[in-house]
Amino acid sequence: MSQPLRVGVAGLGTVGGGVVRLLREQADLLALRCGRPIVVVAASARDLKKKRDVDLSGIRLESDPMALATAKDIDVVVEVMGGSDGPARQLVEAAIANGKSLVTANKALLALHGAEIARLAEAKGTLLGFEASVAGGIPIIKALREGLVGNRVKRLYGILNGTCNYILTTMRETKRDFGDVLAEAQKLGYAEADPSFDIDGVDAAHKLSILAAAAFGAPVNFAGVHVEGIRRVGALDIAFAEELEYRIKLLGVARETENGIEQRVHPCMVSNKTPIAHVDGVFNAVVVEGDFVGTAMFQGRGAGAGPTASAVVADLVDVARGHGLPPFVVPTAKLSAKPVASIEKRRGAYYMRLMVLDRPGVIADITAALRDENVSLESMLQHGRSHGPNDSVPVVLVTHETEELAMRRAVTRIAALNTVIEPPNLIRIEDF
Amino acid sequence: MSQPLRVGVAGLGTVGGGVVRLLREQADLLALRCGRPIVVVAASARDLKKKRDVDLSGIRLESDPMALATAKDIDVVVEVMGGSDGPARQLVEAAIANGKSLVTANKALLALHGAEIARLAEAKGTLLGFEASVAGGIPIIKALREGLVGNRVKRLYGILNGTCNYILTTMRETKRDFGDVLAEAQKLGYAEADPSFDIDGVDAAHKLSILAAAAFGAPVNFAGVHVEGIRRVGALDIAFAEELEYRIKLLGVARETENGIEQRVHPCMVSNKTPIAHVDGVFNAVVVEGDFVGTAMFQGRGAGAGPTASAVVADLVDVARGHGLPPFVVPTAKLSAKPVASIEKRRGAYYMRLMVLDRPGVIADITAALRDENVSLESMLQHGRSHGPNDSVPVVLVTHETEELAMRRAVTRIAALNTVIEPPNLIRIEDF
Repeated sequence: MSQPLRVGVAGLGTVGGGVVRLLREQADLLALRCGRPIVVVAASARDLKKKRDVDLSGIRLESDPMALATAKDIDVVVEVMGGSDGPARQLVEAAIANGKSLVTANKALLALHGAEIARLAEAKGTLLGFEASVAGGIPIIKALREGLVGNRVKRLYGILNGTCNYILTTMRETKRDFGDVLAEAQKLGYAEADPSFDIDGVDAAHKLSILAAAAFGAPVNFAGVHVEGIRRVGALDIAFAEELEYRIKLLGVARETENGIEQRVHPCMVSNKTPIAHVDGVFNAVVVEGDFVGTAMFQGRGAGAGPTASAVVADLVDVARGHGLPPFVVPTAKLSAKPVASIEKRRGAYYMRLMVLDRPGVIADITAALRDENVSLESMLQHGRSHGPNDSVPVVLVTHETEELAMRRAVTRIAALNTVIEPPNLIRIEDF
Repeated sequence: MSQPLRVGVAGLGTVGGGVVRLLREQADLLALRCGRPIVVVAASARDLKKKRDVDLSGIRLESDPMALATAKDIDVVVEVMGGSDGPARQLVEAAIANGKSLVTANKALLALHGAEIARLAEAKGTLLGFEASVAGGIPIIKALREGLVGNRVKRLYGILNGTCNYILTTMRETKRDFGDVLAEAQKLGYAEADPSFDIDGVDAAHKLSILAAAAFGAPVNFAGVHVEGIRRVGALDIAFAEELEYRIKLLGVARETENGIEQRVHPCMVSNKTPIAHVDGVFNAVVVEGDFVGTAMFQGRGAGAGPTASAVVADLVDVARGHGLPPFVVPTAKLSAKPVASIEKRRGAYYMRLMVLDRPGVIADITAALRDENVSLESMLQHGRSHGPNDSVPVVLVTHETEELAMRRAVTRIAALNTVIEPPNLIRIEDF
């Protein structure tokens, strides 16, 4: 059997611990499948005294991750510390500079510095694996770089944040409101104490920018992602969505258009007949539309020690097998920066939920505003009556396909009506 | 740029034509993504005079596929002729013997001779790609060999035949009966004139045996698959399934158990809350349950020129990139033949639909038969009354978990009752 692949794991948190455990438990299986053993020779952690429930015997422990980048007995560094800058970035750059291959689960790092890190790796001829950075255990980076490599991707979209999907699923199942479900998710450990990174869509946007780069052969462009989170999705919206036979999902959508690359993360209404509508709870899913393959969907657990370790190890096996390719499929010199296609040009249908005073002429004013912006209406829902002239009732309008900019102008007009007492809640309807 | 990869395509039917078209249309893209061009230098077809709607200019045409196996200017042969023996098998063996890599979409060939062909390829050090043999454009072989390689697969199951899934979906949507929908599918080209290969489950069994080999590291064992088709699924069963909140799907299920490897293809009832229940029409899907990744599902078009060409080309790109690995993940010498776990040991719930004469004591006799075999009942459905003593009504029984053998004995007892006027229709309930 050939030389073992010698691994250094930087970070012994949930993911790092999972990687060490997987490599130990499946050592024989992996040696058989790779033709050589994969062995963790060293690991680093901030606090080496912390008690961990993973067997670290035989593993050299370092308090400074940079020791892994320079160690002579390490072939590949696994970076699972996290953080877009600081120690993680320094480690990654140093490891590559020392000719080591690099496997990372760090989406923030890649979203912000992916193109540069790919260039470094390419210049050194080392491999850069980042399967674990997007959608946990789902081998979606491999699908884009290899399994679907014969396709021009026309569009891809996905549920990229398990916390948001868990919250939206629970809101639908229990008919409870956002704040209530978020608090529960925090108690259960599905949401962080500071949940903004997840629920404001930033995490999903990191992942989307990485997927788009691999799919379209463009440098990662996180700054080009339009981002909205799920805070404004109410129990009322979920209920109206059910009635309209939609589900509300926080999706990342990326598309190559005539005007450039469109990347956006926001709550979407999707038909309950489309498969992604049925991806519930903490599951993630990515749909890829290719010109030959048609529509393909990949679904699985988007986070957690096991799924993430599964993805990290898949990258390690590629390194062990010597299967290299440019990180974003084409050589970095050939990655072509493309303009950002503004969301203002989006064409599609819209759901708009208003809280209005129940007075004569309200609907006439609203529909006149839509008419003035050339937005045509597909349907309107109104339930219940108010209990007095200052009490509000919800009204839902669903438009035909229109342009985002026209819709925004209509919303501005409608928001200015003094019978409309809350900012209109606009949710884009995606036609998959 | 390096030397082009020179391809010979054996078979210019739907799939072969699709491969030629993809390699032409995406030539620049593929050269960029592989670092070298992929060029079709020759192709073979039985009838060279046949008019085809694919551009064959610059491609040397051969009437004998064996010419591709021996041609000095071909690096890799694509076998898309079909057939488990005869010319396809001769070609594959000859091409490998001549040191060429081999990419095939031929599931029948691999199901029956996969282990032997893998041995030949390994001995010659050539690559063997068969992504297109299972589930069309879905990169599921790559997922098992690479993306999920860090996992021990506990179970996998899938919708592996688009014709059956189309028929079952249409039956549900239109409430029509099997024969009627089959006839329509034949008219639309979704089912063959002789549909038995699809609807009797043979095609799905071929694919399941290939998946199981890659997942469990065992030689392909098609003979070990228990196979039942969908002919006996009636409109009545579909309607009862809806009422019970199930969907009926033809699934292939493979599992590694203490007694060996279980492989079975048959109609299943699955909860309408499970994602695979929502894979409709001609789509295929494969669910893999791994010990680290948890549950991952892969869904897409299971047939057709585009999806199949997408899979063939993914394999060609692996060859172009020099990414080789043993065909069934571990070296053929390490594939361990495991015993067949008989379906008689299956434990699970069962749906049984009976047509009974509506007379006193009928249900007592049926439930006594179940009791005598220790099968306990979860629920019973009976709708409508007969219009006379010789008229029959449907009765549906759903059991708790029991062993297949006990269930079969109970069915034999029940079938022998003279108030039960049709053979009981038994459908296994799968708990995913």
